[in-house]
Amino acid sequence: MATPPEKISSLQNPRVKQLVKLRDRRPRDEAGVFMVEGYRQIRRALEKNITLTELYISPEWYLGENEPSLIAQAQATGTQVFELTKDAFAKVAYRERPDGLLAVAPQWKRTLADIPAAKDGKAPFLLVVEAIEKPGNLGTILRSADAAGVDALIVCDPVTDLFNPNVVRASTGVLFSVPVVIASSAEVREWLREHGVKSVATTPSATDFYTDVDLKGPLAIVMGSEQYGLSDYWLKEADQRVVIPMAGQADSLNVAMATIITLFEAVRQRGSI
Amino acid sequence: MATPPEKISSLQNPRVKQLVKLRDRRPRDEAGVFMVEGYRQIRRALEKNITLTELYISPEWYLGENEPSLIAQAQATGTQVFELTKDAFAKVAYRERPDGLLAVAPQWKRTLADIPAAKDGKAPFLLVVEAIEKPGNLGTILRSADAAGVDALIVCDPVTDLFNPNVVRASTGVLFSVPVVIASSAEVREWLREHGVKSVATTPSATDFYTDVDLKGPLAIVMGSEQYGLSDYWLKEADQRVVIPMAGQADSLNVAMATIITLFEAVRQRGSI
Repeated sequence: MATPPEKISSLQNPRVKQLVKLRDRRPRDEAGVFMVEGYRQIRRALEKNITLTELYISPEWYLGENEPSLIAQAQATGTQVFELTKDAFAKVAYRERPDGLLAVAPQWKRTLADIPAAKDGKAPFLLVVEAIEKPGNLGTILRSADAAGVDALIVCDPVTDLFNPNVVRASTGVLFSVPVVIASSAEVREWLREHGVKSVATTPSATDFYTDVDLKGPLAIVMGSEQYGLSDYWLKEADQRVVIPMAGQADSLNVAMATIITLFEAVRQRGSI
Repeated sequence: MATPPEKISSLQNPRVKQLVKLRDRRPRDEAGVFMVEGYRQIRRALEKNITLTELYISPEWYLGENEPSLIAQAQATGTQVFELTKDAFAKVAYRERPDGLLAVAPQWKRTLADIPAAKDGKAPFLLVVEAIEKPGNLGTILRSADAAGVDALIVCDPVTDLFNPNVVRASTGVLFSVPVVIASSAEVREWLREHGVKSVATTPSATDFYTDVDLKGPLAIVMGSEQYGLSDYWLKEADQRVVIPMAGQADSLNVAMATIITLFEAVRQRGSI
């Protein structure tokens, strides 16, 4: 039986204050940690062997019955557990409908050197996104990357922090499984060239349909940002440019939607998931 | 020069109270109207010849410089204009960041009889969705339907009201252009059969990949609801069942994502946008 959790009731408790601060990027980066809220997300983190340094619980907020076993599972890996009063938990929770579970985990960092040049003898399949701004879009793109089975998501010149609570939430736990690499566009271009990976950029200004180009072999699909689309750098440096033909109004597809369409056409052509 | 707009400053003004009520479905349906907020949405409504019965403006909230010409354009079609104080507009606006423009327009209703059996000699391409719950998802599905050029979106047994402010917003104005039909599943099944339209339902329980079946010819793609997937009715009654192969975690694709993947595979096979 694990030690009973330390109890926290004061809204002035330093841990409570620190958790509130972790909603902002600078304190997150300084502490090198981020927050994972909610039963489902925490379960996913544990499934992927993410170490939770701290787990804050508040039984009055529980929605189900499996919380104790999840807590025991975290404790078994050395997670420190703290029990908060209903009010204290309401203060630290960032979700609209808290479920009484909030964890803190260390941030990680992956570089281009961490990408396997070939996995299980298969040609690499990568997704490169430029300067995505909205956490919700980055989360959705992570889900798409997971569903399409990409080997890594490379975020160039990031605007949104990968460990923003809304990215964690929108990714529905996929953040814990899809390898995400942060690098500059120039570094990425260089790496792709060195490893013989073809870059295919989607842009409304292209003339080739995305369905008419070869998306087999070593591939990096490159997507621009929400507001500005692809930068001049990638428009010029990508090996190929493709367009998604579209009926209706010009902005019907946002970047997350264009990404999933292109990824699944690549999956179709590659014939493997 | 049009009549100067009537000014409203009281939060107790009956028009202010009525606008607040229109956030809820019942008062919307009783009045047979809905709200269109924001410059971009209102411009789109006017472009599609939607009649705006009333336009509420509040210059202190304006974000740009083109508001007066948009207002003049609405007035030219007979729209009644009211000017609200900053506080009164804050009360009626439903967006987080209002831009001083909010219109009221009459609801419309389309039935199966309104669907063109063939448009410009082309086989019909329809999207059928069952009981979608989240306004944001319905809005995203509308955008996908517009981008893919479907002839109509058919909503079976609706849970979410098409005229919910969040559907209007998430559709980015597409609501004004994509024909949306509301009907029961049984009526839809009957109509498809009568008109020789093949129904293809996506479900994780299918064995045929969506890329391996013929999506040319008269086609209706059928998608289930977020939480429950396809109903037993459609699982049984659809002419074909297909699956989207997926890597990663089981719920990586939500219904809006699965819809766009399937729609664009149909677009690819049909070779026309």
